[in-house]
Amino acid sequence: MRLEILPVPGIGHVTEGDDLAALIAGAAGWLRDGDVLVVTSKIVSKAEGRLVDVPADGPERLAERDRVLAGETARVVATRGATRIVQTHHGFVMASAGIDASNVDKTRLVLLPVDPDASARALRAALRDRYGLDVAVIVSDTMGRPWRNGLTDVALGVAGMPAIRDHRGEVDPYGNELHLTQMAVVDELAGAGELIKGKCDQVPVAVVRGYLDAPRDDDEGARALVRDASLDLFSLGTAEARAAGLRAAATVADGVGPAPAEPATVAGAIATVAGVVAPGTVFTHVTDEEVRAGLAATVPGWPAAATGLVLGAAPTPVDRADLVRFGADLQRLRTALAAEGIESTLLPPPAGTTASATLAI
Amino acid sequence: MRLEILPVPGIGHVTEGDDLAALIAGAAGWLRDGDVLVVTSKIVSKAEGRLVDVPADGPERLAERDRVLAGETARVVATRGATRIVQTHHGFVMASAGIDASNVDKTRLVLLPVDPDASARALRAALRDRYGLDVAVIVSDTMGRPWRNGLTDVALGVAGMPAIRDHRGEVDPYGNELHLTQMAVVDELAGAGELIKGKCDQVPVAVVRGYLDAPRDDDEGARALVRDASLDLFSLGTAEARAAGLRAAATVADGVGPAPAEPATVAGAIATVAGVVAPGTVFTHVTDEEVRAGLAATVPGWPAAATGLVLGAAPTPVDRADLVRFGADLQRLRTALAAEGIESTLLPPPAGTTASATLAI
Repeated sequence: MRLEILPVPGIGHVTEGDDLAALIAGAAGWLRDGDVLVVTSKIVSKAEGRLVDVPADGPERLAERDRVLAGETARVVATRGATRIVQTHHGFVMASAGIDASNVDKTRLVLLPVDPDASARALRAALRDRYGLDVAVIVSDTMGRPWRNGLTDVALGVAGMPAIRDHRGEVDPYGNELHLTQMAVVDELAGAGELIKGKCDQVPVAVVRGYLDAPRDDDEGARALVRDASLDLFSLGTAEARAAGLRAAATVADGVGPAPAEPATVAGAIATVAGVVAPGTVFTHVTDEEVRAGLAATVPGWPAAATGLVLGAAPTPVDRADLVRFGADLQRLRTALAAEGIESTLLPPPAGTTASATLAI
Repeated sequence: MRLEILPVPGIGHVTEGDDLAALIAGAAGWLRDGDVLVVTSKIVSKAEGRLVDVPADGPERLAERDRVLAGETARVVATRGATRIVQTHHGFVMASAGIDASNVDKTRLVLLPVDPDASARALRAALRDRYGLDVAVIVSDTMGRPWRNGLTDVALGVAGMPAIRDHRGEVDPYGNELHLTQMAVVDELAGAGELIKGKCDQVPVAVVRGYLDAPRDDDEGARALVRDASLDLFSLGTAEARAAGLRAAATVADGVGPAPAEPATVAGAIATVAGVVAPGTVFTHVTDEEVRAGLAATVPGWPAAATGLVLGAAPTPVDRADLVRFGADLQRLRTALAAEGIESTLLPPPAGTTASATLAI
């Protein structure tokens, strides 16, 4: 058993309206049933006319590029400097939405195909119907990834085979059930194709021979590889998520949590704000039958009979600025509790207490 | 030109102390100079004795597994439910630090090799010195990745070739300089090896033939693929980064920003907190020569001569609870400003104003 990875040279420059099936079949008369074609998305885009005109340079080029990028963007995932990582309308997370200025005239940008799975299906169908070839087709592109330097080629679209090889439920020779073995084989095939394309010059199509026993249609295509953002532990850049946390802190909602908070967790939140609150403020965690949990802010030494709160050693009458600062400290504590998943509500002080406010959590 | 991907069957079970070079040379007498060996890290780990004993099941197994995971963890990147994604001491970001319970006795766990680059170098050297074979060696493992479903095999270690093929500085046929073309070819080679391993049963070594013209030593190894967390836009999970933002909000430092804040950015922060602040509170952005920027909170209709602040329609004397709530609102505003990168300081009110506090930004 062996796999072969073969280049398809001789395709030449592809332009709008070109017939990719004819170009590939003409350049690779040696194609066989069961071959997997790895087709660089750029020639698919060019054939499909996914090009936009832009100025060759200057600020006008950058502005127009930004406008094009916005159109290709479903949501911004992360930015740093000029780098913009976005989720495209297909669901792919890519730098600059996969917009490419290489291997094209300086006055044009190449966008990703509108529906790379459909592009792959159309090419597979054309090769089958017009040339009698039963092959699988992968539309590939180059992507970066978190945590690892260097780019790899992966699949944007596929036809004629499933995107994933699923080993779940199988048992290894030691009797252990395999849990995490859904392999993204079309990504590995796209990368394998890149190895030979990268060794050659201007070869946009590679063939992997020996992998498939027989192509079969699979309606899901490469969409099976797109993880829904809600299921992704890295749906936002770290800086963006941190800023979202800060923004959430600004608008942290009033609401009593669904269950009494653990005293240890509350103590942890208090520890977070300790050292940055106004001098003399003490947060005391009290629990009783009336409220699920309450936090009263008290000052050591303040007479229990008093109905107001003075921070630190501030004398009566109450210093307004100190009360404002105390309110800020309570909000600090609310955000520290929110970081631990604990909702809270700022309430007027219980009558007859030394507090000026109460947090219900 | 073509590449071939060949399986190396017949290696059998590997145990501690086994001589991998002898096993591979014995199973693949057909190896040639220039071949790239893709060796599953698990057999490297087993040969190197990177195994730990654990109970076969029950809570004791989970507890011991957690203890082992902690030892392999340099930092926790993201968690959800039982999933723990960590950065290992090598710098790899992997679920469960790459600890594996498959293809091993139920009472053992397999850890990653201590230094996969060194493992690759040792195997390359042994095959060269003892068998006269000049090959490159990749130590591979299976990893998940953000944004895309399915796993792929990538390189943990490499010897005999650089990890990255660098096209930077080259010019395409249209005269565009190639900027982003550092290809992680060892990851693509690892994935290509997985394609043939996955088609066979229990084949831990694959060979890619035709890719290398000649092996050459490269001291950096697969460490070149490890991106430093400080340079990574996704160094933390989204939930973890968001919680970090909330925690930061709780302890947002007093400090006047290095430059006057843009009025539009301040207006954005005010818009963030609008709707959640106490009724009647109005934040007014004022700038003058005395302070770089100041935000005074005022209440419409309050006499300009007054030296205190009453929120909404609260009558004199000032209601303490309202002042506390006003302080909380100021802290909301501070965190909204912090989310925009604007530092601020809560100050006592300017004398003779209607405010009870001032934010300097």
